[in-house]
Amino acid sequence: MSVVIVGSVAYDGVETPHGRVERMLGGACTYIALSSSYFTNTKIVAVVGDDFAAEDEKLLADHGIDLQGLERVPGKTFYWAGVYSPDMNDRTTLRTDLNVFANFDPKLPDSYRKSPYLILGNIQPALQRSVRSQMNGLKLAGGDTMNYWINDYRAELLDTIRDWDFLLINDSEARLLSGEYNLRRAAAKIFEMGPKTLVIKRGEYGAILFHRDWHFIVPAYLLEEVFDPTGAGDCFAGGFIGYLAEKGFDLHKDQVEPKELSRAVIYGSVMGSFCCEKFGVDRFRTLTRPEIDARFNEFRAFTEF
Amino acid sequence: MSVVIVGSVAYDGVETPHGRVERMLGGACTYIALSSSYFTNTKIVAVVGDDFAAEDEKLLADHGIDLQGLERVPGKTFYWAGVYSPDMNDRTTLRTDLNVFANFDPKLPDSYRKSPYLILGNIQPALQRSVRSQMNGLKLAGGDTMNYWINDYRAELLDTIRDWDFLLINDSEARLLSGEYNLRRAAAKIFEMGPKTLVIKRGEYGAILFHRDWHFIVPAYLLEEVFDPTGAGDCFAGGFIGYLAEKGFDLHKDQVEPKELSRAVIYGSVMGSFCCEKFGVDRFRTLTRPEIDARFNEFRAFTEF
Repeated sequence: MSVVIVGSVAYDGVETPHGRVERMLGGACTYIALSSSYFTNTKIVAVVGDDFAAEDEKLLADHGIDLQGLERVPGKTFYWAGVYSPDMNDRTTLRTDLNVFANFDPKLPDSYRKSPYLILGNIQPALQRSVRSQMNGLKLAGGDTMNYWINDYRAELLDTIRDWDFLLINDSEARLLSGEYNLRRAAAKIFEMGPKTLVIKRGEYGAILFHRDWHFIVPAYLLEEVFDPTGAGDCFAGGFIGYLAEKGFDLHKDQVEPKELSRAVIYGSVMGSFCCEKFGVDRFRTLTRPEIDARFNEFRAFTEF
Repeated sequence: MSVVIVGSVAYDGVETPHGRVERMLGGACTYIALSSSYFTNTKIVAVVGDDFAAEDEKLLADHGIDLQGLERVPGKTFYWAGVYSPDMNDRTTLRTDLNVFANFDPKLPDSYRKSPYLILGNIQPALQRSVRSQMNGLKLAGGDTMNYWINDYRAELLDTIRDWDFLLINDSEARLLSGEYNLRRAAAKIFEMGPKTLVIKRGEYGAILFHRDWHFIVPAYLLEEVFDPTGAGDCFAGGFIGYLAEKGFDLHKDQVEPKELSRAVIYGSVMGSFCCEKFGVDRFRTLTRPEIDARFNEFRAFTEF
């Protein structure tokens, strides 16, 4: 069943210890969509400028991604540049040019409105809420946010996530949002805010899923070489929602077997790990579903006892 | 089958966000032994001063720990004091009084020499080597080290670990010892130094076991409250060696099923998690084997998918 993804489509300038790229396709929506496209029908809602390259559009189209909701307006596409620390655990933003993204007002094509799955990339909470209100018959909706919205748009954010089924953030965001350092306590506080499923991304240490009274923890895949971690968290989100949509689970009807939510976390982890193997979206130019399923099985092998 | 443990028996002064204790039983050997004692016959080699309290000796004896190798000499017992950061991921040493530990020259009682399992706590590499050379018929020997020995006693350390079956260190030590940031590459380098099994402790993120051409990763148990992380890594070591000794595995004869090594890592993780629940060794005053096995099963529940 189809997934609607809202967020940024951008150009990124990235420098890691392995090299530097001035300008390449990026943005949360791009990464989530490429990742999700390996599992299910994927539709994006985003805005780009008139500089958006035909070859980048082709990459998305070649993955079967529905681009009806990709708005093209005069001006330049959102541009972000950053440099990673030597261990790649930190990054410094060098430039953020919102460009056409500054006036992004997501409008859903009619053909998107009955999609049962929705994932809201990290954008202004009010826009996330507006998108959710345009949808009918959702089986599962949730998304991401970041420190900026948690600190400066707290009331708006709380209004927004109240209706979400899941929240997918990293550990420092979970601590900031809940005011609790301990992640079990943080999860309990966040459940009171609305979402009944919390996925905490821990970067090179993996991820935790909290759902009602149980939790699941998975370590990250140990890569021999991390080329570029940009987009890994978004690819995680795409694998997570993609797998649940592929299976057609309805969280509202409580018909999801707990282990299936755990498997969605594994597919998320698998997609995040592939993302880091090359610069930007490059790994998705060659990645195949059999490779994904093989890595899923590797996760089983290195965690089972 | 019995395990010989060499290391420090000490008094610790510890301050965490949950409180402060001026003086309590501590030391690597103490924690490893208390942890191992739940699995197998445990013998310690250590030195204490004439201030070593009868009640502390009783705690060890009540756990069935063989104290023949616990030397008592005039003077004061090793004293260490430290304070933890608010998130307990860092600690600052306030005081290190070696006292009688400065002249520690471990001599094994005859009754220890044929024990098949040996674990060498974090002491000077030359002393670790001396102890190993006093043993006959080892099935499995290994131990711990730290940044100080890696930096300032590198040649001596390399001479020492060449004969070890396993090395059990944390991630920053593995990086320092190997000169590789990536842990897969670090493991490959360390294998060239001798040990064919490397266990990397990652604190609140769990542990990784590298063995020949495969690895196993486990996340740490999510406690609701970490009272005092002192000794957690040593309790991990005790659970790891304790389980292997309980099963009687002989790594030299290659008769250890891989999953059994993984299970030893789980028991290590279980013991490390219990250690953090109370100050110092306090959790071991009440801990029972059924509680340990129940938590082992919890690990299965939150990692299986």
